[in-house]
Amino acid sequence: MKLVPLGDRVVLKAIMAEETTKSGIVLPGQAKEKPQQAEVVAVGPGGLVDGKEVTMQVKVGDKVIYAKYSGTEVKLDDEEYTIVKQSDILAVIE
Amino acid sequence: MKLVPLGDRVVLKAIMAEETTKSGIVLPGQAKEKPQQAEVVAVGPGGLVDGKEVTMQVKVGDKVIYAKYSGTEVKLDDEEYTIVKQSDILAVIE
Amino acid sequence: MKLVPLGDRVVLKAIMAEETTKSGIVLPGQAKEKPQQAEVVAVGPGGLVDGKEVTMQVKVGDKVIYAKYSGTEVKLDDEEYTIVKQSDILAVIE
Amino acid sequence: MKLVPLGDRVVLKAIMAEETTKSGIVLPGQAKEKPQQAEVVAVGPGGLVDGKEVTMQVKVGDKVIYAKYSGTEVKLDDEEYTIVKQSDILAVIE
Amino acid sequence: MKLVPLGDRVVLKAIMAEETTKSGIVLPGQAKEKPQQAEVVAVGPGGLVDGKEVTMQVKVGDKVIYAKYSGTEVKLDDEEYTIVKQSDILAVIE
Amino acid sequence: MKLVPLGDRVVLKAIMAEETTKSGIVLPGQAKEKPQQAEVVAVGPGGLVDGKEVTMQVKVGDKVIYAKYSGTEVKLDDEEYTIVKQSDILAVIE
Amino acid sequence: MKLVPLGDRVVLKAIMAEETTKSGIVLPGQAKEKPQQAEVVAVGPGGLVDGKEVTMQVKVGDKVIYAKYSGTEVKLDDEEYTIVKQSDILAVIE
Repeated sequence: MKLVPLGDRVVLKAIMAEETTKSGIVLPGQAKEKPQQAEVVAVGPGGLVDGKEVTMQVKVGDKVIYAKYSGTEVKLDDEEYTIVKQSDILAVIE
Repeated sequence: MKLVPLGDRVVLKAIMAEETTKSGIVLPGQAKEKPQQAEVVAVGPGGLVDGKEVTMQVKVGDKVIYAKYSGTEVKLDDEEYTIVKQSDILAVIE
Repeated sequence: MKLVPLGDRVVLKAIMAEETTKSGIVLPGQAKEKPQQAEVVAVGPGGLVDGKEVTMQVKVGDKVIYAKYSGTEVKLDDEEYTIVKQSDILAVIE
Repeated sequence: MKLVPLGDRVVLKAIMAEETTKSGIVLPGQAKEKPQQAEVVAVGPGGLVDGKEVTMQVKVGDKVIYAKYSGTEVKLDDEEYTIVKQSDILAVIE
Repeated sequence: MKLVPLGDRVVLKAIMAEETTKSGIVLPGQAKEKPQQAEVVAVGPGGLVDGKEVTMQVKVGDKVIYAKYSGTEVKLDDEEYTIVKQSDILAVIE
Repeated sequence: MKLVPLGDRVVLKAIMAEETTKSGIVLPGQAKEKPQQAEVVAVGPGGLVDGKEVTMQVKVGDKVIYAKYSGTEVKLDDEEYTIVKQSDILAVIE
Repeated sequence: MKLVPLGDRVVLKAIMAEETTKSGIVLPGQAKEKPQQAEVVAVGPGGLVDGKEVTMQVKVGDKVIYAKYSGTEVKLDDEEYTIVKQSDILAVIE
């Protein structure tokens, strides 16, 4: 099952911080989310949204920073996603 | 009796989660709604809505995720529906 | 006396539920209103409303579902009506 | 002295209900206002209002129903008027 | 010193009610302001305001009724004025 | 160091009232600001602002009245300025 | 890692005030931020933003004053940035 966003929507997945324990062992994907950082997992087609032409500027795999409190959290097959409008994405991290 | 939505409206019906009891018996359509997941049961004609051209992008039978708290709940012949604007639909589940 | 709505306005009249008493007698038009269901009794001409072209899509006699809390209740010759904008009508019941 | 409304404004005067006393005497124009019913006493020229073309659709003498709480009450020569935008007029009573 | 309003702004000066004392003496310009009535003392050039073409329809000397609570009160050389947008002027008194 | 405003912004500096002490000595620029009065010290280029063409109508040196509570106060080299949009300027004082 | 802003967004970095201790030693970049002053570290491409053409007018290295409470604070590699829309930038400091 996968999410196919409509219009100018983008599906994001939170980026987990790798954490190193005191003993030096790296625990990938452990507990802590990097706030507001996420990876793009699906991109809507853009086009005419609310009467305005929108061109999509992010692509799957981009790491992005998005506006706090924007978007809607959804759960699918026990995975959590955030669906935002592209205009809620502030910047791409390169 | 059926609902024929106007403009960019879409009629949704909540998707019920199948639940398996401890004894292993599947209880289809039992109690719990999957939050924000719904099936499209009717789609408006789109066209000029609030002065803006809207093309409908979902179709009857699509499983969709929609924005929490959006739409209006209506009851017809003891069935419950949610009528939303297409722009409140975030993504199609494929 | 009759109401001739302006612009994109539609005059609605609540649909009363027929109720059957315990003794089996049907009491047509008794007390209880069907929530949000109404019959269209007059339709405005549409046209340029707030700078936007509106085409009327409902007609007198249509049974419709409209948004809760929308519209204005008016009383004329002891009859009660609700005047809504067409965009507050969610769906036609067929 | 008379009021000449600007733009899409309309000057309304409340319609008073004729009341019959117990002794059968009709007291025209007595106390009680008919809620939201008014007679049009002056109509603005319409034209470009807030950047949008408005055509006036009511005329002096029309009896109208207008939205509760809309408009501004003004007093001129001890007469009370309500000045509304035409879009606050819901329907003409014929 | 005089006020030259910008855009669609209009400078108003409150109209004072003449009051007659019990002894019959007229006290011009005494205490009481006529609510919402004012005289136009300066008119902006109109033109493109917030992206919309505005044509000025009032002129210096017009007596007008304006919307309660609209506009900004300013004081210049101990005189008090109210500066409103033309769209806050409801009607001219003729 | 100087402030170069963007778009339709205007940099204002409060006009101080000259105050005469009881002994008759004029204290220029003393304590009290004239409310809402200011001198224009820099003017943005105008042009397309929020999708709307804006032509600047004030110039450096103009004395203006601006809307209470509008604008942002900034401090540069211990001088205080208020940066407003031109549309917050109500009138020029001539 | 660097931030590449989308649309009309601009990445800002707070300007720190150099502080001189009592003993006369300059402590560059010490504690105190200059309120609302920042340096531009990255500029979005502009173009069609929310249906409106935006031309970017600031460039990397500009010192700017921006509206209090606007923008979103983000943290990347332990550096703190503020991402604002260009329209939240009031003026360039030259």
